[in-house]
Amino acid sequence: MFKKRHNIKEIEEGKYLSPKFDENGLIPVITTDFKTGDILMHAYMNSEALKKTIETKEAHYWSRSRKKIWRKGQVSGFIQKVIEIRIDDDQDSVWLSIDIGNGASCHVGYRSCFYRSIPLGKINDEEEVKMEFKDKIKIFDPKKVYKDEPNPTKL
Amino acid sequence: MFKKRHNIKEIEEGKYLSPKFDENGLIPVITTDFKTGDILMHAYMNSEALKKTIETKEAHYWSRSRKKIWRKGQVSGFIQKVIEIRIDDDQDSVWLSIDIGNGASCHVGYRSCFYRSIPLGKINDEEEVKMEFKDKIKIFDPKKVYKDEPNPTKL
Repeated sequence: MFKKRHNIKEIEEGKYLSPKFDENGLIPVITTDFKTGDILMHAYMNSEALKKTIETKEAHYWSRSRKKIWRKGQVSGFIQKVIEIRIDDDQDSVWLSIDIGNGASCHVGYRSCFYRSIPLGKINDEEEVKMEFKDKIKIFDPKKVYKDEPNPTKL
Repeated sequence: MFKKRHNIKEIEEGKYLSPKFDENGLIPVITTDFKTGDILMHAYMNSEALKKTIETKEAHYWSRSRKKIWRKGQVSGFIQKVIEIRIDDDQDSVWLSIDIGNGASCHVGYRSCFYRSIPLGKINDEEEVKMEFKDKIKIFDPKKVYKDEPNPTKL
């Protein structure tokens, strides 16, 4: 189903899907809100998750913490309806444009996972870098929604 | 300069930058056009590239093919001026919003690396998946711009 990668010109300029999965069998995925264009999350797919996403038009990822296919929204109810999928020049990353209605994609409760901004300019090596919260409104309460599910964030 | 990761609550809800670099010392980066919101590219930074990007306000990446810090636009002239940097909930991916004026970010010549769209729906396992070109206009001719530089796309 996915074309073998045997020619760089074909990978870059050809019409056939030949995704490159890394040494762990994964490809990085950027997920954006099709209405606002905002980046919602960054995740990974394996070959099966990519196939399921294309076929069901619902985002499926590979959960690195749980080591299994993850139908996004299975627990929270915030299913991601796929509007468009694109792939990049060397076919080693994927862009999903999705619809989550008024829902959220971040397990912490925010609409987007990217709710903090890093200040620009000279860094003092002795000091920590203090960020700014750009989004302060949680769409849901993770404790109520996820209950006893383990937190995917790892040290 | 980057806070040590020793508490999940602090990583997710705290103000301090404590990025997680993977087993190769890299963090994935999504780069968007600050004007249109379009995704331009997906790349990686090591700790030094992230620091240089924050301090110089010009995007620096880690080139996995060339194994060195890569000041984007050094060869092509399409320098990426950083407008904003965000980090996600578990601090293992970065979003750069940048200004490249009327330039391009894709080494193949297109404005964005994501110029092909994957059709949705049932896949026939026996057939290859044929994509659609969403962007057909090259901003520059890679042969003229990169000359003898090696192509970063790998099989």
